[in-house]
Amino acid sequence: MGNLANTLGVVKRNITRADATAVDKLGRFGVATVHEAMGRVGLMQRYMRPIYPGALVAGTAVTVLLHPGDNWMMHVVAEQIQPGDIVVAALSAENCDGFFGDLLATSFMARGAKALVIDAGVRDVKDLTAMGFPVWSKGISAKGTIKSTLGSVNIPVVCAGANVNPGDVIVADDDGVVCVPAGWAQKVADAAEAREANEGEKRAKLKAGVLGLDMYKMREPLEKAGLRYID
Amino acid sequence: MGNLANTLGVVKRNITRADATAVDKLGRFGVATVHEAMGRVGLMQRYMRPIYPGALVAGTAVTVLLHPGDNWMMHVVAEQIQPGDIVVAALSAENCDGFFGDLLATSFMARGAKALVIDAGVRDVKDLTAMGFPVWSKGISAKGTIKSTLGSVNIPVVCAGANVNPGDVIVADDDGVVCVPAGWAQKVADAAEAREANEGEKRAKLKAGVLGLDMYKMREPLEKAGLRYID
Amino acid sequence: MGNLANTLGVVKRNITRADATAVDKLGRFGVATVHEAMGRVGLMQRYMRPIYPGALVAGTAVTVLLHPGDNWMMHVVAEQIQPGDIVVAALSAENCDGFFGDLLATSFMARGAKALVIDAGVRDVKDLTAMGFPVWSKGISAKGTIKSTLGSVNIPVVCAGANVNPGDVIVADDDGVVCVPAGWAQKVADAAEAREANEGEKRAKLKAGVLGLDMYKMREPLEKAGLRYID
Amino acid sequence: MGNLANTLGVVKRNITRADATAVDKLGRFGVATVHEAMGRVGLMQRYMRPIYPGALVAGTAVTVLLHPGDNWMMHVVAEQIQPGDIVVAALSAENCDGFFGDLLATSFMARGAKALVIDAGVRDVKDLTAMGFPVWSKGISAKGTIKSTLGSVNIPVVCAGANVNPGDVIVADDDGVVCVPAGWAQKVADAAEAREANEGEKRAKLKAGVLGLDMYKMREPLEKAGLRYID
Amino acid sequence: MGNLANTLGVVKRNITRADATAVDKLGRFGVATVHEAMGRVGLMQRYMRPIYPGALVAGTAVTVLLHPGDNWMMHVVAEQIQPGDIVVAALSAENCDGFFGDLLATSFMARGAKALVIDAGVRDVKDLTAMGFPVWSKGISAKGTIKSTLGSVNIPVVCAGANVNPGDVIVADDDGVVCVPAGWAQKVADAAEAREANEGEKRAKLKAGVLGLDMYKMREPLEKAGLRYID
Amino acid sequence: MGNLANTLGVVKRNITRADATAVDKLGRFGVATVHEAMGRVGLMQRYMRPIYPGALVAGTAVTVLLHPGDNWMMHVVAEQIQPGDIVVAALSAENCDGFFGDLLATSFMARGAKALVIDAGVRDVKDLTAMGFPVWSKGISAKGTIKSTLGSVNIPVVCAGANVNPGDVIVADDDGVVCVPAGWAQKVADAAEAREANEGEKRAKLKAGVLGLDMYKMREPLEKAGLRYID
Repeated sequence: MGNLANTLGVVKRNITRADATAVDKLGRFGVATVHEAMGRVGLMQRYMRPIYPGALVAGTAVTVLLHPGDNWMMHVVAEQIQPGDIVVAALSAENCDGFFGDLLATSFMARGAKALVIDAGVRDVKDLTAMGFPVWSKGISAKGTIKSTLGSVNIPVVCAGANVNPGDVIVADDDGVVCVPAGWAQKVADAAEAREANEGEKRAKLKAGVLGLDMYKMREPLEKAGLRYID
Repeated sequence: MGNLANTLGVVKRNITRADATAVDKLGRFGVATVHEAMGRVGLMQRYMRPIYPGALVAGTAVTVLLHPGDNWMMHVVAEQIQPGDIVVAALSAENCDGFFGDLLATSFMARGAKALVIDAGVRDVKDLTAMGFPVWSKGISAKGTIKSTLGSVNIPVVCAGANVNPGDVIVADDDGVVCVPAGWAQKVADAAEAREANEGEKRAKLKAGVLGLDMYKMREPLEKAGLRYID
Repeated sequence: MGNLANTLGVVKRNITRADATAVDKLGRFGVATVHEAMGRVGLMQRYMRPIYPGALVAGTAVTVLLHPGDNWMMHVVAEQIQPGDIVVAALSAENCDGFFGDLLATSFMARGAKALVIDAGVRDVKDLTAMGFPVWSKGISAKGTIKSTLGSVNIPVVCAGANVNPGDVIVADDDGVVCVPAGWAQKVADAAEAREANEGEKRAKLKAGVLGLDMYKMREPLEKAGLRYID
Repeated sequence: MGNLANTLGVVKRNITRADATAVDKLGRFGVATVHEAMGRVGLMQRYMRPIYPGALVAGTAVTVLLHPGDNWMMHVVAEQIQPGDIVVAALSAENCDGFFGDLLATSFMARGAKALVIDAGVRDVKDLTAMGFPVWSKGISAKGTIKSTLGSVNIPVVCAGANVNPGDVIVADDDGVVCVPAGWAQKVADAAEAREANEGEKRAKLKAGVLGLDMYKMREPLEKAGLRYID
Repeated sequence: MGNLANTLGVVKRNITRADATAVDKLGRFGVATVHEAMGRVGLMQRYMRPIYPGALVAGTAVTVLLHPGDNWMMHVVAEQIQPGDIVVAALSAENCDGFFGDLLATSFMARGAKALVIDAGVRDVKDLTAMGFPVWSKGISAKGTIKSTLGSVNIPVVCAGANVNPGDVIVADDDGVVCVPAGWAQKVADAAEAREANEGEKRAKLKAGVLGLDMYKMREPLEKAGLRYID
Repeated sequence: MGNLANTLGVVKRNITRADATAVDKLGRFGVATVHEAMGRVGLMQRYMRPIYPGALVAGTAVTVLLHPGDNWMMHVVAEQIQPGDIVVAALSAENCDGFFGDLLATSFMARGAKALVIDAGVRDVKDLTAMGFPVWSKGISAKGTIKSTLGSVNIPVVCAGANVNPGDVIVADDDGVVCVPAGWAQKVADAAEAREANEGEKRAKLKAGVLGLDMYKMREPLEKAGLRYID
């Protein structure tokens, strides 16, 4: 059953990473802006939360598919990390054990990883916070894992409801995690920039007391839709 | 179907806000104290959490009823905000998209709003934290919303399991959110004050090592209830 | 029905606490390390979270069994606290009301308690944080409780999925809560120490860029398991 | 603190029930139809599920406010039941103990109750099913309750996110539970009837293969919105 | 670390099962009655649900501790089953894969097992239903498991929040699952019988229209507690 | 921003459906068997449950991407249904409103659809059950939806955590839902057949009392792993 087996126990070494300039540019915007610029797709589910507040990262995805309670492939994926990468770990079934701690983080950082995004649990979060290695995860758990079953590295995965292909851009901050397909990176970065430029002016107006009702010219459509004011 | 339609697509401009002195007084106490003083009613469900720790606010409710994935009415409610108000946003069905971000916050702050309480999601939480605009929400989500369907402003709503009428007092802190009916505000504030005064003395005794068993004279009722000590 | 009744309405005054030296030693390691050293048992469920980040405590358990919405026994257990103890509160049925606040914390601290671990809710978390009294709980809720039904103190309990006997060692940090049976305390502490010593060297290697694949000699077993590298 | 206390420990004996003809008429339609006819308000949260499939009931609400783990007021509300009523039980805080079983059901049925809607747990569900007494609840639990704290009967309550006033009409089926304010009952029943009549014709067309796209004339607005067909 | 290791990779062959007469007697009562008779302890969490309605079983526990995603020990426990046993499967960490299907059920039935109670997932539920083999589980999942890590058989376990020792009595029905310690079995069965006898008379009275208020003489204590009737 | 926009507001009319013979063959096996045969990938999350028990379907996927609270595209996808298809509805963000009821089911059935798989809510479940139209959904909700925003039809989607491409095979039963890529259909069907054939013999042996320990020759590896039997 060639095709099927191909997705298990495979490590793809050569992947095409999104353009570095586009990644850097995307990193100047938050997740909400990028998500809007991309047409509101690619967002991971909102249970993906950072282990500490304030981090904003953008990087290229190296992916890993793990099985419940087994973090063997985390060591395999470590070797495939290049500076600027973000490891995206998907699970073959729901599980929230602690797949990742300070030792793996030390290794990932040594390889140049910027962050970990994992649809499962992490541990040693106090150490990870002190090390400044940001992780977005489904939860926190001290429960250890075994090293017994093969998963795969750098195959397309579904992580927290979002498709991630190796080389895609991951942007993550306090609002969550979004995946930008590598081929869209430049266009989305440009669109995000345009949005943001646009927002500066809006912010100033709103601060000065102009209402969104007027700034966005909503009064007419609201009236057409039937909005009534009473006293 | 007049009566029914009246609750949809309506903005009530004139509402009676709770007495400002009572609101200020309530703002000196935490949610737990106010909730106790009121007879243990009016508490929103505990999934309502602040986006950053440490805030304590009290203000008068302007209410808005939203539909899933649609934040059009947030712009409508903005116009109805007066200094000292807290916007209370209820949903017509369960949804946790990001209905509110830094632009709307800028507008709300310009109008004098003290906080937002929303039974749905928010985004741009890093910016909101930097701006010092506190939000109590069901969750955090970068997912954007559309502007398509009418809700209502300043009608009675059920927000996170609690009834809120326009003009009621909202008190919120790290323990959650409680709604004090406008007509009860002064009495509840007085009761909270009495409780708090009372607590200072208790705290001192407990700190000195006196047991609650003795301070509250619980030993006799416990024995009557059948409590037995063994070695 | 003697046997049954024995577990309700009982306060055991004399319990055998784990050896203080072992407790102190356990307190030098985090929950993940202790959990590993013990063979991956004794961990409470991951919904048990600290009310503020950064605390690490180890202490001897005094246990209390509570009923939904009733915190009467919290006053009873206070009297049984000795310096260095951690109160472990289990519930007879799922409930997340606020069983504990700043007054009880004042009393517990006066008795020498180091922390509270409760499979229910707490309140006054801002005050508790200011007081530096750490609590691991299922949630935060301002909802008060009554004082009406007897539970028990210092009986064996199941707290958040873990068995806790009075006198056992509780270790808690940002990763969660683990219970070490009193009789195992010294051996687990020694095993944790051995692990940690071991980890220093590993950390240095990983930091220098050595891969876990090589350090743990995983390449051969991975190949045997069928791992294939493709380009 | 008169006003506040009025809501606790009170049993209102005389309530105005919705018109019986309107209630009967509403009982001919399912929850989805009634909910639509009413303008999409009044729906309880979707965690409210029937203990057995297939029941459809409509009746007038007698309300009861309970406290976690305490079903004392269920006996008080029993006396206020009149034939055709549905008991609506709200909780002052989240709890899912088994507040209701076959004995209370026997009593409720003897009083003429048609169903129970409870934002908490029930037990003896096998017996209740055999008795044909339908219950919509948050869950099933064998956990018993105590009889210690006063709640109230026939006050306005929030049940599973919906406002219910004594005398309102409750309609419940496999899709959930909806509350129709007593004053709206006739109009909503009429609107539901109009909808349903309307639906027969639509159903026949759709069955014959006519597409909703054509029947509802959606092709033009879809095209205007930008829908594109590709091959 | 002898003591610790003793709990992993161990199969205890000789266990003392609760008295068969007591087990049979307990099987005549539902879970709610047994739970009450025992003083409201021993109940598993309410997420434990039967895969089909209507089953009522009582049997002696053989226990097994499993690891996430690994059902190897299910084959080991099969050998320890004696007629009348119920297998109680606990997990070392939260997981809901499908640990059990029709093949294992065939084996368990051949050994005389009456049911499975598992704090994880099952699959082949249509087949299990057709075979009449009842399972109470945390959920249903087609996700398969591996056979790689040792757990233990017939050690004390915590299953869905309840302590279960090998040989204890498990009673399960549509209301959930309760564990009766072997040493309590006869007394609890007697107490359940007394309760049930008692209930027949009560049921008849309630059916005849007598109110619980009168039958349980609640009017006086309610009045003392402050209950007021208004019109 | 061509690429991005291409995924929104698009209906692909010509899709390549999996081979009909393979689909039929897959329909003879349950979800658990197909999932195993495919190497344990492609399974939707376990919250996807059938609205009534006992259904087993296999069909080719026509996909639709919906937005929270908006079922406009359900009418668009109806036109693309061919006999034997199963509609797979994904959501752009978490939402559980009732997107589908008896009218749409009538239309889908008239077009030859075998089932609906939707990562959101459905309503009219009593009618759908009577009509024999099976639905696997995230939940049941009477809450209606609007028709306002464009999604897409027959684009690749992530539904309940699984990738689904138009034309893929969907197999669903009481155990859940699995997606077989169209290109794998024949091989997976063959593998499932081989498994099932294999299982008949195993079932007979187990029924006769042979233990899995012996049939699968597990005793040696268990001993090697360190399993110890004690009395």
